[in-house]
Amino acid sequence: MHATRSASHTFRLSARGFSTVTRRQAPSGLRINPDRLWETLHKTCEWGAAHRYGEKPTETGMARLTLTDDDARVRSWFAAEVKKLGCTLSVDQMGNMFARQQGSLKSSAPMIAMGSHLDTQPRGGRYDGILGVIAALEVLRTMKESGFETNYDVGIVNWTNEEGARFPKSMCSSGVWAGAIPIEKAWDLRDIHNPHVTLRSELERHGYLGDIPCASDEQFGYPLGAHFELHIEQGPILEETGRSIGVVQGAQGYRWFTIIVHGKDAHTGTTPLSTRKDPVLAASKMIAASNEIASRHNALVSTGIFRVPSNASTNTLATNVTFTLDIRHPNDSVVSAVQEDIFEAFATIASQDGKGVSFDWTLDTDSPAAKFDQNCVASVQAAADHLVGPEKSMLMTSGAGHDTVYTSKHCPSAMIFVPCREGVSHHPTEYCSPQDCALGTQALLEAVVHYDQFRTKSENS
Amino acid sequence: MHATRSASHTFRLSARGFSTVTRRQAPSGLRINPDRLWETLHKTCEWGAAHRYGEKPTETGMARLTLTDDDARVRSWFAAEVKKLGCTLSVDQMGNMFARQQGSLKSSAPMIAMGSHLDTQPRGGRYDGILGVIAALEVLRTMKESGFETNYDVGIVNWTNEEGARFPKSMCSSGVWAGAIPIEKAWDLRDIHNPHVTLRSELERHGYLGDIPCASDEQFGYPLGAHFELHIEQGPILEETGRSIGVVQGAQGYRWFTIIVHGKDAHTGTTPLSTRKDPVLAASKMIAASNEIASRHNALVSTGIFRVPSNASTNTLATNVTFTLDIRHPNDSVVSAVQEDIFEAFATIASQDGKGVSFDWTLDTDSPAAKFDQNCVASVQAAADHLVGPEKSMLMTSGAGHDTVYTSKHCPSAMIFVPCREGVSHHPTEYCSPQDCALGTQALLEAVVHYDQFRTKSENS
Repeated sequence: MHATRSASHTFRLSARGFSTVTRRQAPSGLRINPDRLWETLHKTCEWGAAHRYGEKPTETGMARLTLTDDDARVRSWFAAEVKKLGCTLSVDQMGNMFARQQGSLKSSAPMIAMGSHLDTQPRGGRYDGILGVIAALEVLRTMKESGFETNYDVGIVNWTNEEGARFPKSMCSSGVWAGAIPIEKAWDLRDIHNPHVTLRSELERHGYLGDIPCASDEQFGYPLGAHFELHIEQGPILEETGRSIGVVQGAQGYRWFTIIVHGKDAHTGTTPLSTRKDPVLAASKMIAASNEIASRHNALVSTGIFRVPSNASTNTLATNVTFTLDIRHPNDSVVSAVQEDIFEAFATIASQDGKGVSFDWTLDTDSPAAKFDQNCVASVQAAADHLVGPEKSMLMTSGAGHDTVYTSKHCPSAMIFVPCREGVSHHPTEYCSPQDCALGTQALLEAVVHYDQFRTKSENS
Repeated sequence: MHATRSASHTFRLSARGFSTVTRRQAPSGLRINPDRLWETLHKTCEWGAAHRYGEKPTETGMARLTLTDDDARVRSWFAAEVKKLGCTLSVDQMGNMFARQQGSLKSSAPMIAMGSHLDTQPRGGRYDGILGVIAALEVLRTMKESGFETNYDVGIVNWTNEEGARFPKSMCSSGVWAGAIPIEKAWDLRDIHNPHVTLRSELERHGYLGDIPCASDEQFGYPLGAHFELHIEQGPILEETGRSIGVVQGAQGYRWFTIIVHGKDAHTGTTPLSTRKDPVLAASKMIAASNEIASRHNALVSTGIFRVPSNASTNTLATNVTFTLDIRHPNDSVVSAVQEDIFEAFATIASQDGKGVSFDWTLDTDSPAAKFDQNCVASVQAAADHLVGPEKSMLMTSGAGHDTVYTSKHCPSAMIFVPCREGVSHHPTEYCSPQDCALGTQALLEAVVHYDQFRTKSENS
């Protein structure tokens, strides 16, 4: 089964590829093609390229929102490429694309999937999601050209509308697949700029409203035997600690809140501090307090949005303030404790200063923490150990949401992180070096091969 | 000179008028007509009525922006009314309207003016500015019908674009008159919704680009012998302390700043607190700190505007934050001290949390404190003492800017405040009761008569 082996003890990828010398020969004996990976990734980014920030051809961001014409173009290309490799392609009722390469066992058991997404934010980059799918394709291409076969079927999933940027529900179609989001609700999501366009109408327009129910169910859905996802970290930790591979063992829980502080508009020059109901002051103190509470719990609390009414002026106290809170921690119980402390502090703050303010809050999103499958994580860990060694890899918890968070509820799952420059993502300048893209792809290949071997042993012992 | 005197010792206005029984007979012997005042005020508010909030005919706000068609209508009406009274009307190059009633001395000395403005905010009320002009008209009507003559000439000023809501420069034309704003700059102000329209082009369109230079200069401008302005308080102090008349002895100094805090956008889920440059957090701490500093100095500090970029989202730290600061105190030296303490605190805060942020600030407006003329203030005080007594009046410092702040630099000036409901102004529901409107108008009359007598004695002794 193992075809061409690298001749050298340490294997170094080509100029465009690994600069890091891996510690030892890749256990699969396979070697992905870094140049092909890089070229394929950037070639497909011509569909949706936007927001140029530099002179080089690849120095643009992306605006490839789900189920737009550009997304349809990259989907067609993807379908053609996997068919060239001899894969079967299935599309479910959410337009999720499942490419499947038969393994040597010719087992009907669910395939080991490498999944991510080809859609982007409106001002997104070239790596978030895209790298995971293109890397998966490179893994299949590498296997194919080497005549390498896994034991179990292996394949790729392109999940629809992961970003939730056009139809506002992130990880939308893995959520439907996992039974967490009703398909009618997902189908009825409206284009944020055109309420006449639904996700379903766009699936139909592009021919991606498949026949297969979007579900993990063995009976009638498209179950998966495992799910591995290569993704840029979207944070600064790998880069700042000089590591190349993050072995992702789970995802933080998070809760998103909208808080509205109700005050009273009044003239700044004529209203004594003692008679004010100043929502900007109260909200400011709330945000400062939430940060202190987060630090105490070693959690993350963030405010991304802070709005005063559009008629605000320098010499008028605002009527109200709306701000968001995003609380995160790998432990759901800590998320709850932080939430409790924060709203207790907010109540105290609301009663202070002038005549006090009132506030309402709503829980907008509640995403419990996920713990990935220990065998999948072990396969990623083994890949990382082989490729870069323990000094250059680290166990991590994903701070962001990913399709893998949903798949992990229904099949063994894990993720691989690679560094992105300055931790920047969801931005045109998002960047992952050719070396890191290649290392991550090699790690994806090794993890899948390792897991396939583990699965063979465990299911046949 | 004194005509009809009130027969009763204490004089009570009609149903619509004073509910407060004044302590003794008005020293002028005159009595304004509260019903006529109220009806005139609300009749003229039909030009520009907007933002209905209740069922009664008068329960709307106003949108009578300067030099709009509705403002031109009320100006025409005003011109006709003062001419009916036998006044001469002069218009200067900023469209300021000077109505002048000759006094018994037939002196060419500058008139004693009662001034305010007929323009409003886009979501303004029926009293801010309007009351001051309509009350002044009621004073002249009362004098006329009683055959009462002041010694010196007396009159009314309708100042153009006091609000600065359409052409963004508040107290614009009293500022030009006072030499604080160059006329070319004022003329070139652009309509905030249509940059092709200038203040000058609107003066021309409506026929209010007068010949008289807009200046306080005796040689070629339109000098004033004194300036009295009746105005709603625009704050809650009179109402909360149960007083009817504020004797305004000056105006606070204030400085307006715009602060931009520069951070770095980053994913809230993947960016540790220690590596953040979070401008929302820093700005929040700055606002909380500015409030503490203000309290320590017994000053006012307010933030009315707080903006994050429009692409802000719950799970992204903002790139930058823009917020305003409005620092006020009756003493300019305290304003300076507060400013110094605030920016020292801001520098400390900017260096804290994560990797810190940077910030810039600009001084947008610097309005020094004003101290009104002691003889004018004494005339207002005498009026208040006679009408409501010391328990129902109080010395005040204006928190807001007014045309009188500019006139006070070039002629003896003072103001009279009356309560407005819940301190609300610049809002459709702004309200001053018929009783308080009438009391304020009577006080304006008494103050002018008192000052005219004082002036006669002092200039002829």
